[in-house]
Amino acid sequence: MWANTCRISSSRLFHTTVVPEALNRAIIYSQHGSPHDVLRVLTFRDPPSLPAPNTLTIEFMLAPINPVDLNTIEGSYPVSPKSEPALLSSHGPIFVGGKEGLAKVVAVGEGVSGFMEGDWVVMYDHRVPTWIKRRNVLATDLIKLPLTAKDGLSEVNGAMITINPPTAYNILKEYADLQEGHWVIQNGANSAVGQMVIQVAKYRKLNTINFVRQRDDLEALSQRLQKLGATKVLTYDDLQETSLRNRVQEWTRGKDIRLALNCVSGPTTASMTRLLGPNAHLVSYGAMSKQPLLLPTSLLVFNNLTAHGFSQARWNGTHPKADLEALVGELAKMMLDLPGSNNSNLKEPMHEIVRIADDESDEAATKKIKDLFKKVIEGKVSKILLKWSQ
Amino acid sequence: MWANTCRISSSRLFHTTVVPEALNRAIIYSQHGSPHDVLRVLTFRDPPSLPAPNTLTIEFMLAPINPVDLNTIEGSYPVSPKSEPALLSSHGPIFVGGKEGLAKVVAVGEGVSGFMEGDWVVMYDHRVPTWIKRRNVLATDLIKLPLTAKDGLSEVNGAMITINPPTAYNILKEYADLQEGHWVIQNGANSAVGQMVIQVAKYRKLNTINFVRQRDDLEALSQRLQKLGATKVLTYDDLQETSLRNRVQEWTRGKDIRLALNCVSGPTTASMTRLLGPNAHLVSYGAMSKQPLLLPTSLLVFNNLTAHGFSQARWNGTHPKADLEALVGELAKMMLDLPGSNNSNLKEPMHEIVRIADDESDEAATKKIKDLFKKVIEGKVSKILLKWSQ
Repeated sequence: MWANTCRISSSRLFHTTVVPEALNRAIIYSQHGSPHDVLRVLTFRDPPSLPAPNTLTIEFMLAPINPVDLNTIEGSYPVSPKSEPALLSSHGPIFVGGKEGLAKVVAVGEGVSGFMEGDWVVMYDHRVPTWIKRRNVLATDLIKLPLTAKDGLSEVNGAMITINPPTAYNILKEYADLQEGHWVIQNGANSAVGQMVIQVAKYRKLNTINFVRQRDDLEALSQRLQKLGATKVLTYDDLQETSLRNRVQEWTRGKDIRLALNCVSGPTTASMTRLLGPNAHLVSYGAMSKQPLLLPTSLLVFNNLTAHGFSQARWNGTHPKADLEALVGELAKMMLDLPGSNNSNLKEPMHEIVRIADDESDEAATKKIKDLFKKVIEGKVSKILLKWSQ
Repeated sequence: MWANTCRISSSRLFHTTVVPEALNRAIIYSQHGSPHDVLRVLTFRDPPSLPAPNTLTIEFMLAPINPVDLNTIEGSYPVSPKSEPALLSSHGPIFVGGKEGLAKVVAVGEGVSGFMEGDWVVMYDHRVPTWIKRRNVLATDLIKLPLTAKDGLSEVNGAMITINPPTAYNILKEYADLQEGHWVIQNGANSAVGQMVIQVAKYRKLNTINFVRQRDDLEALSQRLQKLGATKVLTYDDLQETSLRNRVQEWTRGKDIRLALNCVSGPTTASMTRLLGPNAHLVSYGAMSKQPLLLPTSLLVFNNLTAHGFSQARWNGTHPKADLEALVGELAKMMLDLPGSNNSNLKEPMHEIVRIADDESDEAATKKIKDLFKKVIEGKVSKILLKWSQ
């Protein structure tokens, strides 16, 4: 009901195709549901003002669509979004989408230290929505990137530095004491985190066995993952092979595998876990199969397998902010091309940038966004980043 | 094939119904299979001799049948039994059953300190088989009980002190920091370990929510478990009730539950685990449903659930022997009636003692054992302890 009212009022109020300075724009929703049903682009009055004390005004340069955004919009993510104060409506709360993004500081409020106009910033608080042109944010909710374009950090890498790369880094670090030459096993190896795991593992001189779905272009995918640093690429079908255990033991030269990473769950994860040695750790950070995690109890009782779950949001909440600042700084360095080579340790994932131009009407932009999210949910597009453009 | 030969030769050699001193007797098997198929009672020449240096001769007073014995005989337990040196056969190894039992020291070899004739001992090494009348054992494979019958410790409690009570004690202690008034949730609450958990929890002033199967005599079972100290007794069917979560929160007064104990696995364990609060631990020590452990991945990722497995045998292997000696001593004290009361903290489980008399022929005793194990596997009998008797 609100959605209709909103569409009518917004088109009545803003008969313009150029978004003037006094207007702001965001991708919003007012009720949970499929993103292509509930999302719309809204232009709204939001005259720029000096930022309040301890806040900054930032303008978003690039914001990704992450799986967690879909879950949040659908209402299946356990942390509810904050409603948008600038969009208070008598018909109920309005939410802006997005949890990650790269922004530029355009104004610094009183009492803020450590930030300057032009700084590149990313969100420390995942509850600060990012699919918006401009917003005021508490300085405590931001992290300043120590590197920018002039150091060689790309906007794409900067826009996706707070969720996937720290997840990959932490799941490889926090559960098992891995040394050079050790082996890690993972499923969903082609996911954004999976590709980061491959690269962080390579950087740490760890070997990876990477499982992906059987597909027509397997050879091409396998080569792409190996180029990122994957030691071995296998499919879930390979888990049915009784000889797999022996092949793995040949690769590892009998060395026990102590860490498995899971973002799939379901029966193939059980099979993968059987490849682990004693006293191993299985760390889950997703469940793309939408099936439960399924483990032979004997692996826990007799092999001392421990099963953990990881969420970067929870990690942020249980660590001082300085820990994430340090980690983001380290990851940013890994994203730069090494001196003398054309090869960074963490490459930009395959991606597409979708632009919403000022001269597109809300109706046209909403249609574009709805079509886009249909494709995102159907898995028909690579990683998408959103960009407001003139 | 060997089994036939063995039966023939043993009946040819020992045409006697009274077992003389030079003979020994054991419940043996020579191949894996259903216990009622492969087990037999065998009398064999084993003239008593002075124990070798660092060993003792012990005579078994009482030895239980534990689920782990069935798995070992069936070949599904990951640790293979040691074959019996006194029963070397040209037809392959012969194994004696049993992993736990109470024995009396009858002779002490050279170099052994800390043991005397008449001492009550239990097995430190679970691989020393116990369904035998008499054997020599390395002193390092034994633990001397600090209490005996004259202190008020029963043979039944002594015979079952090394597996279930330490398991219950350790799973309540090693994974969550529980204080007086905290709540623990468990399934298989009527199992031997389950009943021990109830009592150890009561001793530690912890509250327990105990799940059992729906059954005709539920009220009687519930009362029996409450008499042991169970705070609440529920059935797996109750897990279907949407109101259960609220009932549990009323009982705990909103206090989060941090520990769940599982010996069942399968879907009901997933439902039980949903009753846990954040940062909780699920400790599995069995899988009576013979189904895998099944967990919603979201509980691990968002609620920080950690799933562990416990095996007392592994605990023994990763702790100094003195730790188990101290634990067994503490448990033995909990098994005594308290001064001035008729109420020990750890009661004998419901049990039945099955005697094999010297004047029963191997054939008759084998038939008795086969019938017994059929009933054990069908769950038709309470805990069984075996006793050799004159």
